[in-house]
Amino acid sequence: MAVPGDRIKIVTKEKEIEGILMPNESDSSVFIKRNDGYNMGIDKKKITKISVLKAKTEKKEQKKVIKDKKGLKKIVILHTGGTIASKVDYETGGVIAKFSAGDLIEMFPELIEIANFQTDLVSNMMSEDMVFSDYQKIISSIKKYIGKCDGIIIGHGTDTLAYTAAALSFAIENPSIPILLVGSQRSSDRGSSDAAQNLLCASLFITRSDFKGIAICMHNSSNDDKCAILPPTKTRKMHTSRRDAFKTINDSPIALVDSKSQKIEFIKELTDKATPDNKIIIKDKFETKVGLLKTHPNIDPNLFEFFTKNYKAIIIEGTGLGHAPTNLGNNNLKNYEILKRFIKSGGIVAITSQCLFGRVHPNVYTNLRRLSDIGCIFCEDMLPETAFIKLAWLLGNYDKEKAKELLNKNLREEITERTPYKEDFLEQFK
Amino acid sequence: MAVPGDRIKIVTKEKEIEGILMPNESDSSVFIKRNDGYNMGIDKKKITKISVLKAKTEKKEQKKVIKDKKGLKKIVILHTGGTIASKVDYETGGVIAKFSAGDLIEMFPELIEIANFQTDLVSNMMSEDMVFSDYQKIISSIKKYIGKCDGIIIGHGTDTLAYTAAALSFAIENPSIPILLVGSQRSSDRGSSDAAQNLLCASLFITRSDFKGIAICMHNSSNDDKCAILPPTKTRKMHTSRRDAFKTINDSPIALVDSKSQKIEFIKELTDKATPDNKIIIKDKFETKVGLLKTHPNIDPNLFEFFTKNYKAIIIEGTGLGHAPTNLGNNNLKNYEILKRFIKSGGIVAITSQCLFGRVHPNVYTNLRRLSDIGCIFCEDMLPETAFIKLAWLLGNYDKEKAKELLNKNLREEITERTPYKEDFLEQFK
Repeated sequence: MAVPGDRIKIVTKEKEIEGILMPNESDSSVFIKRNDGYNMGIDKKKITKISVLKAKTEKKEQKKVIKDKKGLKKIVILHTGGTIASKVDYETGGVIAKFSAGDLIEMFPELIEIANFQTDLVSNMMSEDMVFSDYQKIISSIKKYIGKCDGIIIGHGTDTLAYTAAALSFAIENPSIPILLVGSQRSSDRGSSDAAQNLLCASLFITRSDFKGIAICMHNSSNDDKCAILPPTKTRKMHTSRRDAFKTINDSPIALVDSKSQKIEFIKELTDKATPDNKIIIKDKFETKVGLLKTHPNIDPNLFEFFTKNYKAIIIEGTGLGHAPTNLGNNNLKNYEILKRFIKSGGIVAITSQCLFGRVHPNVYTNLRRLSDIGCIFCEDMLPETAFIKLAWLLGNYDKEKAKELLNKNLREEITERTPYKEDFLEQFK
Repeated sequence: MAVPGDRIKIVTKEKEIEGILMPNESDSSVFIKRNDGYNMGIDKKKITKISVLKAKTEKKEQKKVIKDKKGLKKIVILHTGGTIASKVDYETGGVIAKFSAGDLIEMFPELIEIANFQTDLVSNMMSEDMVFSDYQKIISSIKKYIGKCDGIIIGHGTDTLAYTAAALSFAIENPSIPILLVGSQRSSDRGSSDAAQNLLCASLFITRSDFKGIAICMHNSSNDDKCAILPPTKTRKMHTSRRDAFKTINDSPIALVDSKSQKIEFIKELTDKATPDNKIIIKDKFETKVGLLKTHPNIDPNLFEFFTKNYKAIIIEGTGLGHAPTNLGNNNLKNYEILKRFIKSGGIVAITSQCLFGRVHPNVYTNLRRLSDIGCIFCEDMLPETAFIKLAWLLGNYDKEKAKELLNKNLREEITERTPYKEDFLEQFK
């Protein structure tokens, strides 16, 4: 019988397919990694024969040890899983624990000139499954290495990378080193992989700039030249598959790093917050009873009821300037009464916009004023996802009144100053 | 005592403010429209005196009748409310019913050269409060005028304008005339109002092109020159306040209309579907038991449970290529079991992405395959909001099996063909 990692041939009535058998994750299909790097599922019912062409080669357990080079800075890479680690994943049938600094250098030999690397495994998961306790594991690992290296790279699945970036940026105040979240949209065994450039640029930015703080490092365009260093609370994954999927909303990237010339161009002025007086402060608790409610036409008052009954605080992802369906219409007024009662009894309701770009406002329209009148907190130009993470973090580490007070105050550049919008609000994406 | 519409002076300890008293919508504040066109709320507790400077002038009930000009086409304007109607709103203290063709021409005199206008009131609401029965009211009004005019403009609040556009485009198959949804981001009593240009361009497009179908007409950039004619199922409000807030996602605008030169430039080829053989078909039912569930880290299985217990069908706004938190992590596997049970017992689960741009995929990753294995339907590059409206419409007008079959088939250009993405996916926003 074939085992994951074996090179196999699958025969069906229509065709024959060769590839590496992948770990079984489905009752109805067999999955193989084809020679072109793509994964393919084949219906078990259609398979007439599976033959092993070459048994999985058991890798020797010897660790590849890369000697540290003198004069180079030290970067710690914390693995959490995701596509950036997926080549190793497939090869060994899912055992990412073997992803040593040696493996890394073998995969991305350019790195050896930039810094000395050490790797550590935090978890091995696709990022859509992250829960708050995973953030705490990452923060513990960061704590372990801070003071012992010149910078940290966190390898992370791209799906919720921006949520984690926001979480780390609230949890870790005044970090004394650069901590960069790096993902990849295409796995490193594909020709179009962005893994190498993203890791290279992150390493360059850590070793050759004075930046201290949390940021994201991903492709700036679909060209293989520059990566953008992106602000952790103002960035969002805006495309399902492109390598330049990560975009800054209502703000600009921090810097661009050219992987070829190795030059760094700062777009935002560096504010070095980590002076000796500003010691690192870590607050790593997150309240789990926070909900995110995206509104839409014909929304059900029972859903509002569910949120107010099950959570201590609700982020509303409303429409336009921060409207919620709480006025006219069959049941909408009921939604208003539900929110009003919830806030009166101590609940927190925060308002953001599903437009993503632009700022919510508590009183341009009558209906907005009705929401602010009952105590809804308008979150300026904060992203709904950032507001969700921030509120969970605030309630985890402060009492309720303080959390309410801080929610729409700018703590980590999650709220920009009220300046006129740029002539073209999506200009940054050119 | 002052009544709404009166010109008043409000005196507080700190200042005096003059303006028009607005209809009362708050127990704690008084709202006036200042001379600069902005609305202002003043805390009742701080007010020491209110004096009436000039009583509201009762408008005579005589209808301004504009004679139809020979040779001009006829456009019917259906009012549903929103900012585009807000000048009239403020003036009369909320009575939009008086918004006749005469009032309209008085406000926007450029229109008189373009077409003959007739107006009709469907509703008077801000669009965040729309429910499915409001769509049915709009569709009834369209039915009433189709065949009796050369085009219809629907004045609509911008907040949920794109949802309504999708609803109309599914409900009305093969419309024989152009039906354009027009909103404005700034009310017509403000210098920066976009109302006039949007109405003008919509009227030009109706009278000077062969387009038949549903579309949106809004500012193309923040310049007062061109409007974009936008596809009803691929467009989204992407900014809270800018006049060019409406952007096409995963597609391109249909055409640009220059308000100055009055020229029309088509970007997409016109496919005239309304041949004599293709009679208009109206299906105006919408199933209310459809939910929209946006996922995020640390999401609560009770929320999944709520959706499966209360709705017949769920649109999941997942992460990346269509992931949902249904795998590892504390409670995520529970979410998987909940969805599996729901689908087994006849529920529908559809997958879209909170990235908005790009396409979901049922099998690039193992975790995606796990979702497709239990019967989740991957909705290609359909917007989550469009998928929500489409599924409600499908279940309102077809049996369940047919609805499932049609959900990820292209009916109204809500799904684009699988072509390589453009070099810069946000290029269209330049």
